[in-house]
Amino acid sequence: MIEIVVDLPKKDLQLAPMHRIIKKAGAERVSDEAARELRVALEEIGVKIAKEALDFTRHAHRKTVKSEDIQIAVRKILEE
Amino acid sequence: MIEIVVDLPKKDLQLAPMHRIIKKAGAERVSDEAARELRVALEEIGVKIAKEALDFTRHAHRKTVKSEDIQIAVRKILEE
Repeated sequence: MIEIVVDLPKKDLQLAPMHRIIKKAGAERVSDEAARELRVALEEIGVKIAKEALDFTRHAHRKTVKSEDIQIAVRKILEE
Repeated sequence: MIEIVVDLPKKDLQLAPMHRIIKKAGAERVSDEAARELRVALEEIGVKIAKEALDFTRHAHRKTVKSEDIQIAVRKILEE
């Protein structure tokens, strides 16, 4: 019997990329809690961006969120 | 012969979670380009947060980035 175990993430983002991103910034060591904290932050910011983007999508009478919607939303969130 | 093909990401974040995050915000449909755009944005914001966090880590004469460093950095980035 072959069993394939897939670790389904409860969170949208994985933890390993968070470690990589912090290391990429120049960190020598990264605590697991720091990686978790970054994950929470990026998920929140991601949803915030997506909600803003959706406003632009609806305003343009579209049902599909396009890259231009995300672009405008990102600019808005970061400028706030 | 069993061949396992693993799609190694060149980017730190995966594309599927970006679709999920945008759907979670209430989108009916999400273009692939929109998901890619969100990935680029979150990676950039992630590195930005990590670099700020590292300043706090070094200031505290630590070598390990801790969750408190990420927390302060997130607040700083979002308030800018």
